[in-house]
Amino acid sequence: MTVSGGKDADATLRTIALRLEYDGTRFAGWQRQDGQRTVQGEIEAAIERIVGERATVHGSGRTDAGVHALGQVASFRARTRIGAAEIGRALSAMLPEDIAVLGAWEADADFHARFGAASKVYRYRVLNRRERSAIDRAFSHRVAAPLDLDAMRAAAAVLLGRHDFRAFCTEATSRNDTVRTVSRLDLERRGDYIVVEIEADGFLYNMVRSIVGTLLLVGTAKMSVDAFRNVFLSRDRRRAGPTAPARGLFLVEVRY
Amino acid sequence: MTVSGGKDADATLRTIALRLEYDGTRFAGWQRQDGQRTVQGEIEAAIERIVGERATVHGSGRTDAGVHALGQVASFRARTRIGAAEIGRALSAMLPEDIAVLGAWEADADFHARFGAASKVYRYRVLNRRERSAIDRAFSHRVAAPLDLDAMRAAAAVLLGRHDFRAFCTEATSRNDTVRTVSRLDLERRGDYIVVEIEADGFLYNMVRSIVGTLLLVGTAKMSVDAFRNVFLSRDRRRAGPTAPARGLFLVEVRY
Repeated sequence: MTVSGGKDADATLRTIALRLEYDGTRFAGWQRQDGQRTVQGEIEAAIERIVGERATVHGSGRTDAGVHALGQVASFRARTRIGAAEIGRALSAMLPEDIAVLGAWEADADFHARFGAASKVYRYRVLNRRERSAIDRAFSHRVAAPLDLDAMRAAAAVLLGRHDFRAFCTEATSRNDTVRTVSRLDLERRGDYIVVEIEADGFLYNMVRSIVGTLLLVGTAKMSVDAFRNVFLSRDRRRAGPTAPARGLFLVEVRY
Repeated sequence: MTVSGGKDADATLRTIALRLEYDGTRFAGWQRQDGQRTVQGEIEAAIERIVGERATVHGSGRTDAGVHALGQVASFRARTRIGAAEIGRALSAMLPEDIAVLGAWEADADFHARFGAASKVYRYRVLNRRERSAIDRAFSHRVAAPLDLDAMRAAAAVLLGRHDFRAFCTEATSRNDTVRTVSRLDLERRGDYIVVEIEADGFLYNMVRSIVGTLLLVGTAKMSVDAFRNVFLSRDRRRAGPTAPARGLFLVEVRY
């Protein structure tokens, strides 16, 4: 008994996974909020039109206002006979231009984009030049002063492995578990850019942006590598650098 | 006798050159037009505020609506005691976020950005994948069908050298000189992108976009390399492919 929009009470409950790209510029972040334009809100509204029922879409993580994604993964459950590929095409046609569906597939019944994630990769793009950019103003953070990449790499190396990242979390309480494992932290110069990539089993609130903001202090010789290590070991966010702007940050990949 | 804004009747007439980056998305092109937002119009208005007099700013070429620039060169003359570097900084602070000044210098008195240009380099970015992009929607043209890069390269090779490019010009009249010399035409795959770069001593109206539009027919096997050659030799624009969208096109460099 299929009704308009695809709702079907007799259909099996399907778990659908999505791989998503979005331009975070005009979103108040991932998480649905009343009266705000959010990625989750836009996707849930489109899904409701397609499958005919309201479903909660879980992202692998709740990216903040202004943060972009090249490969966010999300999942939801719905009773429908519409296949995953068709749902993906319909979503792609319906979603606004700043959200794109890169893939849609039927996942195992117990798949959950957030709880199942084994690791995530974030990228931060620093435009290291004096002149502002007209073309790349929405997808990078410009730093005019020359950056000492070797010093930044030496500081970054301190973070590799399993550690308490409380110094780089803006919302930790004493009860939070702030221990994470960073398996990769690469800094690479690409033309006028310095690109930071970090992979970890999980990320605290504003962790990448706090790390990058503090690494930029090291890169401009406002903080030594030793001081960086001490800040990290202090687990005191007030001693770390500023939170780098959201527009330079991309969620690149989620691994399961 | 300096007046507010820097106007100075006794100052020498200076020729100032500018290197400019702009995001063409929200401009009705380079050329000043009444009631339209144009790159030339924005720059001339800012210069008037800085040097206190109206000056005509000549670009190396008049990019079309929606076309971007990474290295447009422009020049103007003004009587002012304000140095070129200071004019550059003031312009940078005054111009809207979608125009950036990359450099400003005092040129020889007879320098003219348009008439002096020896060659120009344009880049066209094709995103060759099925899914639309949310991040790169303003700076590339998406082609969903797989592209045969070897065939496109074979066709492109036909264009190298000094030829009549009338087949790739949308506004030629019988009196126009449509002979140009293409010194380089590279096609390169970079991840999901095919990037076309073309250097010539001059470009006809819509020449790069017409060439790319026709190369895309070759890449999707809708036109053979032989047919491409015949279209080119026919000098008949009606036989060539569509004009590729402006948003994929960048003026990269101007050589003098």
